[in-house]
Amino acid sequence: MTADPDSGLLSPVRAGTPAEAVTGDWAFAAALLEAEAALARAQARLGTTPPKAAEHITVAARELAETGLDVVQLARDARATGNPVVSLVRTLSAKVPDVADFVHRGSTSQDIVDTAMMLVARNTLRLISADLTVIAHALAEVARAHRDTVMPGRTLTAHAVPTTFGLKAAIWRQGIQEAARRVASLRLPVSLGGAAGTLAAYVQYGDGTDDYAERLVTAFAEETGLTAPILPWHADRTPIAELVSVLAGVTTALGKIAVDVQVLARTEIGEATEAAGGSSSAMPHKQNPVQSALIRSAALQVPVLAAGVTQSGLAEDERSAGVWQAEWQLLRECLRLTGGATHTTVDLVRGLTIHADRMRENLALTNGLIVSERLSAALAPKVGKARAKDLLGTASRRAIEENRSLAEILANTPEITAVVDAETLADLVDPAHYVGAAGRLVDRALENPSE
Amino acid sequence: MTADPDSGLLSPVRAGTPAEAVTGDWAFAAALLEAEAALARAQARLGTTPPKAAEHITVAARELAETGLDVVQLARDARATGNPVVSLVRTLSAKVPDVADFVHRGSTSQDIVDTAMMLVARNTLRLISADLTVIAHALAEVARAHRDTVMPGRTLTAHAVPTTFGLKAAIWRQGIQEAARRVASLRLPVSLGGAAGTLAAYVQYGDGTDDYAERLVTAFAEETGLTAPILPWHADRTPIAELVSVLAGVTTALGKIAVDVQVLARTEIGEATEAAGGSSSAMPHKQNPVQSALIRSAALQVPVLAAGVTQSGLAEDERSAGVWQAEWQLLRECLRLTGGATHTTVDLVRGLTIHADRMRENLALTNGLIVSERLSAALAPKVGKARAKDLLGTASRRAIEENRSLAEILANTPEITAVVDAETLADLVDPAHYVGAAGRLVDRALENPSE
Amino acid sequence: MTADPDSGLLSPVRAGTPAEAVTGDWAFAAALLEAEAALARAQARLGTTPPKAAEHITVAARELAETGLDVVQLARDARATGNPVVSLVRTLSAKVPDVADFVHRGSTSQDIVDTAMMLVARNTLRLISADLTVIAHALAEVARAHRDTVMPGRTLTAHAVPTTFGLKAAIWRQGIQEAARRVASLRLPVSLGGAAGTLAAYVQYGDGTDDYAERLVTAFAEETGLTAPILPWHADRTPIAELVSVLAGVTTALGKIAVDVQVLARTEIGEATEAAGGSSSAMPHKQNPVQSALIRSAALQVPVLAAGVTQSGLAEDERSAGVWQAEWQLLRECLRLTGGATHTTVDLVRGLTIHADRMRENLALTNGLIVSERLSAALAPKVGKARAKDLLGTASRRAIEENRSLAEILANTPEITAVVDAETLADLVDPAHYVGAAGRLVDRALENPSE
Amino acid sequence: MTADPDSGLLSPVRAGTPAEAVTGDWAFAAALLEAEAALARAQARLGTTPPKAAEHITVAARELAETGLDVVQLARDARATGNPVVSLVRTLSAKVPDVADFVHRGSTSQDIVDTAMMLVARNTLRLISADLTVIAHALAEVARAHRDTVMPGRTLTAHAVPTTFGLKAAIWRQGIQEAARRVASLRLPVSLGGAAGTLAAYVQYGDGTDDYAERLVTAFAEETGLTAPILPWHADRTPIAELVSVLAGVTTALGKIAVDVQVLARTEIGEATEAAGGSSSAMPHKQNPVQSALIRSAALQVPVLAAGVTQSGLAEDERSAGVWQAEWQLLRECLRLTGGATHTTVDLVRGLTIHADRMRENLALTNGLIVSERLSAALAPKVGKARAKDLLGTASRRAIEENRSLAEILANTPEITAVVDAETLADLVDPAHYVGAAGRLVDRALENPSE
Repeated sequence: MTADPDSGLLSPVRAGTPAEAVTGDWAFAAALLEAEAALARAQARLGTTPPKAAEHITVAARELAETGLDVVQLARDARATGNPVVSLVRTLSAKVPDVADFVHRGSTSQDIVDTAMMLVARNTLRLISADLTVIAHALAEVARAHRDTVMPGRTLTAHAVPTTFGLKAAIWRQGIQEAARRVASLRLPVSLGGAAGTLAAYVQYGDGTDDYAERLVTAFAEETGLTAPILPWHADRTPIAELVSVLAGVTTALGKIAVDVQVLARTEIGEATEAAGGSSSAMPHKQNPVQSALIRSAALQVPVLAAGVTQSGLAEDERSAGVWQAEWQLLRECLRLTGGATHTTVDLVRGLTIHADRMRENLALTNGLIVSERLSAALAPKVGKARAKDLLGTASRRAIEENRSLAEILANTPEITAVVDAETLADLVDPAHYVGAAGRLVDRALENPSE
Repeated sequence: MTADPDSGLLSPVRAGTPAEAVTGDWAFAAALLEAEAALARAQARLGTTPPKAAEHITVAARELAETGLDVVQLARDARATGNPVVSLVRTLSAKVPDVADFVHRGSTSQDIVDTAMMLVARNTLRLISADLTVIAHALAEVARAHRDTVMPGRTLTAHAVPTTFGLKAAIWRQGIQEAARRVASLRLPVSLGGAAGTLAAYVQYGDGTDDYAERLVTAFAEETGLTAPILPWHADRTPIAELVSVLAGVTTALGKIAVDVQVLARTEIGEATEAAGGSSSAMPHKQNPVQSALIRSAALQVPVLAAGVTQSGLAEDERSAGVWQAEWQLLRECLRLTGGATHTTVDLVRGLTIHADRMRENLALTNGLIVSERLSAALAPKVGKARAKDLLGTASRRAIEENRSLAEILANTPEITAVVDAETLADLVDPAHYVGAAGRLVDRALENPSE
Repeated sequence: MTADPDSGLLSPVRAGTPAEAVTGDWAFAAALLEAEAALARAQARLGTTPPKAAEHITVAARELAETGLDVVQLARDARATGNPVVSLVRTLSAKVPDVADFVHRGSTSQDIVDTAMMLVARNTLRLISADLTVIAHALAEVARAHRDTVMPGRTLTAHAVPTTFGLKAAIWRQGIQEAARRVASLRLPVSLGGAAGTLAAYVQYGDGTDDYAERLVTAFAEETGLTAPILPWHADRTPIAELVSVLAGVTTALGKIAVDVQVLARTEIGEATEAAGGSSSAMPHKQNPVQSALIRSAALQVPVLAAGVTQSGLAEDERSAGVWQAEWQLLRECLRLTGGATHTTVDLVRGLTIHADRMRENLALTNGLIVSERLSAALAPKVGKARAKDLLGTASRRAIEENRSLAEILANTPEITAVVDAETLADLVDPAHYVGAAGRLVDRALENPSE
Repeated sequence: MTADPDSGLLSPVRAGTPAEAVTGDWAFAAALLEAEAALARAQARLGTTPPKAAEHITVAARELAETGLDVVQLARDARATGNPVVSLVRTLSAKVPDVADFVHRGSTSQDIVDTAMMLVARNTLRLISADLTVIAHALAEVARAHRDTVMPGRTLTAHAVPTTFGLKAAIWRQGIQEAARRVASLRLPVSLGGAAGTLAAYVQYGDGTDDYAERLVTAFAEETGLTAPILPWHADRTPIAELVSVLAGVTTALGKIAVDVQVLARTEIGEATEAAGGSSSAMPHKQNPVQSALIRSAALQVPVLAAGVTQSGLAEDERSAGVWQAEWQLLRECLRLTGGATHTTVDLVRGLTIHADRMRENLALTNGLIVSERLSAALAPKVGKARAKDLLGTASRRAIEENRSLAEILANTPEITAVVDAETLADLVDPAHYVGAAGRLVDRALENPSE
């Protein structure tokens, strides 16, 4: 059956990345099959399915996943039943006619789809976690290398006071580490509830022991490598909501780096450049900061998609009608975009070039006004707070109007030189000497290891 | 190059629908090529490109669109440049080496991508419009047929006063017609601005006339069948924002029908059933209202996706960095989900069965309390408002406690029978006689033609 | 009753603006009362309520609105009934004991709340429309004044090709005009449906004529100044959805201006400054572009709030349970933020100072590479496209590495001077001569009048 | 100064609740003052501010918070500076002229606003946590009491298989407990970074020791009762993003209960009623499930508002321009709505009445089809899977068409009675005997204590 699928043409941030390979329709179909096979094996471990049957089902599921499944047909069949599992079970059963009774035994579609989603999530999160560690390490090195690289601190788009690029990188890293911590804290449970969350049909096919249902959940969790929930979560979407909020946290941490790089890379600012600026279709000279643009594109999308997923927690009844289906593609997009953006950020941070010379030049742009906060604090004890404010106000206006440095104006203001000697004044107006605790903050942050 | 694309497995509402076929990566790549070819032809019409060159480019673009384009490679190439046009132009140029100079002449990637997006939108909107007309017609027939089919009006989930299914259907249809009106009002402009919105390179390759740029925009619009904007809209995303808000309007109108059908289809209510209820993987007897679930799944997604697109109107500079890229997939999803949901709703409304008998039974469930508003209004002039309220309150409580009909209790209340004769009372308590202007409203609504 | 209300402390973009005054709780309570009074007058016009009664109700409603209503109590009473109308009707009725029977006659809470919301929307939109006209006029003047003020066109944060500030202003204005057009196209209908949308109780209290319901809707519309809908819209939220999507369009158009001003106001860029930069609590010298920050804060909020409102179009039944209530505050916030942002933008555009000198300086920052697109186009016909690309590539690299102007390097490249004379070359490298159709585009845009 | 503030008129879910009292403008202004006072005390602890000065500032801050602050004026002043702190500092300083130099010493507005937001969050979260515990306890009792109350399990709106109300309540409780766990895990840090995150001015006013900045952060944290972050978070909004995602988790858990109650409370279903149904303005008899409607209204809003907050994590530079301001009101609304919804849910769960009789009646509505899954599983081993399916299909169709019970039809089917004796059959068709592990699941869930 022909179709016109998405291969990432409208989503370059993830096109061809490893995250794409573990989240596509084939990967998802493989996860559905893996869930079915793991269920059969779990039942075999509990003695309610013949081991041979579970083995046949497992082998058939793998074969189908590798070669034989028509995902386009599967997708279309899902229109009749609301999900692809009915059709998948039919196909899988046909592959193992002798043990077909043991396929999907006692199960319901949502158990399989939810478990498959968690398997796909786990596979993507592995990639994301590994990349976040790489990013955090790279940023640690950058922060260390630029611990004392002074640059203009910018607030409300204007120069405020000096900061260091090391501190900026350490704050980026902090965001990444927080995101990584949240990823690590996620629990990814199997879904096992049966038609209405009571596990009734599983129990019906069970061995009659009191704790059969619990043991089945545990066995299923072990076979999949996921965790075992206490209660079914068909109608309690906390695991899904937590997952997407964490993914949004990851892309926001990445996106923060991207929007900062975009500022630093502006032609007028020139404090950072990407390793491989993208070329333009029209302008041969132009080196576009493409990686940060792609990362930002993901960071703009994921929180919105995540909000859509979160809304579907308002799912009525034992299993909802349509609210559940609304989750699927949004969640997959969250996973894929986050994986793609993390991958792209590895390249970004590894290839970033910092221009300390431009930072120094930019620090001088305000003729020294960037240290006015410090002068204000230093002069107050000498001449009184109000007078200090007046003197600095006048000097600042002159610095702007006459395009002279504040240092020079102050050095020619007797009321100032009367209380501050030349050496002290030179120190006070040097932006590099007004970075507060920046160095210490970097050191402390770096004590917090990545991973 | 292999990939793991999306074929709709996680989005059954659109899997295999016509909207899917006009919004996939192949369709989008074809639209990119169509935009390039139309640009060459527009330049040929103005005499700045040889007609033969435009013809060759057009033929080559069609051939590539039909058979020769590796969209997976194109998607991956887009990572280096931030969009797929640079790679596409390279491929197209290689197909027409003799006239390669006339490919993408004076152009910029955003002109091509934005125009292609509008072409894809137009193709999808045609499907949507046609389906909305079909839905509106079907609902008109339903409203006419059920003009006087009385049913419980439900508010805050409880029976309020009677209404008619005809009025309900007419209100559904009104939502559809409003959505269709908004679709029809959309303008889909070509994008033509060049590198920074001045059309400078187009003019550079132009004929030197003063109005060359305007004429080029007009010619490009005519070649594509889109409209000609006054100013470039690289950085004014109104056309995109309006488009997605209209799409969200469509899915909301469809989703309203779906959530209502879900209520009416509940086992306990049973007032409507879908033609082809979906079967369950676990329960042979179960007929699920799958179509409304699928439609609702789209209606939950599109407004959120649309919000993501709208946010990207905050695009800095002449062309933004990442904000633009964030639009693409979200917008395509809006188009595809809306197209899929509209298609699914055609099936839903055509196949819907209404159970007037269940409506009548349900009307009786409150033992007549459903007409208490009317009795209140009718008795007030006879016994005073306060006394009427007392009498009805007492009678209502008895109706509930004794599980008797309010009519019977009132017929045995001397204070009532003293002022209302038996016939009038019978009329007052008949739900079918308390539907207000429902019939007239249906008639008036149906005077407003669909289309 | 004491309370801790919001007076805008966390929303400076609207604090103290006219929009705040027409959207607060008092304003909304006044609108509820206005709706009740208009309903009584409409019924009086149709002869089913004594004119004196309608007059008394109108006078009492105005008095209550002006002085006597305890909105805090009203708000708390709404917890018991789900909306404030039950309590309001009790208060209003108590003010007019003799004609209390004619208060809220035949009505339902949603008719009053929805109508009041439309009245509040109308009052806010009047302010918004007037301000948008002012903004469009101011931008027209700016565009005219700066028709030929050349500046760097920026794309993906980097210099691309030259543009003009006039064109930039014209594109801002286009966004504003589109937003104003959408505002003007809004229909704001009265809501009149009665308990379940059939108008049954209104009809019950009516005069028995066939078209009573329609005439009542018309009269109600005339008394309020709103439009008359064909069908009740309790359960078809198109008017609300359209309203918020238009408001999001307005704030996006405003926000686009704001984010551009933020770029232009950066210390390193310095091409624009706000009239009254905000001062800092820490840095005496700092002039922050506060107005654009406030406008952007609204533009970030409204689309998200609007998405929340749009979702509530999925309202089940004749009147929904909770979905409706979710609309209220979100919609009010949309109105208030949009009104506040529009008001703030009037100040922004009126006070904006443009620094043409800085634009010129910035144009020179790339040593002429900003016109490389043009050179490429101009040289191709002379030396062939491939050779032109080579020559320019080499010259561009040298311009960067040697920090010399591209013009100078080209003037010393024999292969160039052999085919281009000095005068032509001087023209080709002048950024001011490469603004394409910018001037014409401004002229055409200005032909489209504001209003 | 007069204003038209919000007192909850459009947000009944929180009107008059304790959460409202700790989140209003007065509460927020008090938190700003508390942050200023705590900062002075922290500096006093480190010996850089005289203890008396800190004491005066603390007293003055409390007095202002209790009586003296014009929040309306404060809100309006914020328009000039982008936040209310500049004006607040002026007012506070004027109250303590002798020690004014020690007010806001070395500080920046964002330190104060962010810290105040965390104080407000802490106060609201305390209310929320306490209420969540109450809800979890109440649900534990309900789950225990209804451990074996059988009811129809509903999926895709239709009866699926039986479940118990105990399990449903246990799943509600699980959602609440997960939400409470996430609330408990939140860290609420003070914000202390100074003008650009380096703490430079604090250090300037410090004692010259190397670790002064760290000790100041610790002291500030201790004075406020918040936690001490390693790095400033002006530009790393993880704490804010995590906070709102947790709040959205809370309202979703509450909203899940609400949408389920709305289904159960439907006139036709009647399995649950709220303690105090809201009355209607039109229909005297009607008891609306108002509490669940209010809770749902919050659950629909908070995830969207939270998404808006999350987006503001993309904050450029050391402190952003407008992105930060966009957070404030959205975040406050999240806190207030969540607090209001939690409060309302306490009432809901305490007052909920369960109608086990209606559950039993509803179980019978499908004439026994609700246990068809079980029959299918039980008959397969006896007659083969295919034959079992045929027999049940035929019997089910007859049960529907002839409106007879499936049990009766099967009891008259020789092929069935040949393999299943009457007693077994009676057991198989009893819905109460097909609830799987429901009882065990409830028991296990209840072992997990609330708190």
